[in-house]
Amino acid sequence: MTSSAASSPALDDIEEGIALRPKFDAAGLVTCVTTDARSGEVLMVAHMNAEALEKTVQSGEAWYYSRSRKRLWKKGESSGHVQRVLEIRVDCDQDAVWLRVEQAGAACHTGRQSCFYRRIDRDGSGAPLLTMVDADRLFDPAKIYPK
Amino acid sequence: MTSSAASSPALDDIEEGIALRPKFDAAGLVTCVTTDARSGEVLMVAHMNAEALEKTVQSGEAWYYSRSRKRLWKKGESSGHVQRVLEIRVDCDQDAVWLRVEQAGAACHTGRQSCFYRRIDRDGSGAPLLTMVDADRLFDPAKIYPK
Repeated sequence: MTSSAASSPALDDIEEGIALRPKFDAAGLVTCVTTDARSGEVLMVAHMNAEALEKTVQSGEAWYYSRSRKRLWKKGESSGHVQRVLEIRVDCDQDAVWLRVEQAGAACHTGRQSCFYRRIDRDGSGAPLLTMVDADRLFDPAKIYPK
Repeated sequence: MTSSAASSPALDDIEEGIALRPKFDAAGLVTCVTTDARSGEVLMVAHMNAEALEKTVQSGEAWYYSRSRKRLWKKGESSGHVQRVLEIRVDCDQDAVWLRVEQAGAACHTGRQSCFYRRIDRDGSGAPLLTMVDADRLFDPAKIYPK
């Protein structure tokens, strides 16, 4: 018994329980981090609504919700660069999900393996400056995503 | 030359440029994924405002912005579990940051190394069910965060 209302599970249930109770934000989304299961590299950060999470859990392939296009999408639906999900984890407060995947092709729409192809360094004056790292293109975006 | 207004950098600058131009959301935040530099494990997902990002870049230790407490915080400020930042990366559209860190103590306020200590499995009927993984507590939260 807790002091929380029935519709608001106690913090302990959220953090220590074995029931999946995603804490969707005002837009109905949780944050999703997707890493390469072999290298551990972060491939992308995206969002999932309840349906995307459900489809990912049930299908074993990654589905997301596009905030810009305002629709569900399966990763690789146009590029063929699907993500086979080896493991899904949820964080302590259940507002973020971590997918460990096998990435077909490359994850980033720019053609890179990962969306994180630039490191934040500092220039001589200490100001931030980006440096390309692991930025080789594995495909030509113009061929994969025709206008 | 682009068709964008000067105050709205062209997509190509955002994705291919070497200038840091974080795309803060309506609340002034970017998403931050923090991984353990050795294991590749995702330790936590949090948020940064401009000041947190600036302090992280300049100090080499991780600073975040707490949405619940509505304030800047340095990871480890009360627990001592600071994060030494080995690398910072930014993603293609510059609305997410990836920190590779050396974690002192443990990252999660529940005492676990990572906030992602539960795997989403399915029960016999196919419904989602959480399984504890890597869930040993490395510290006692009651001792680290006194009420």
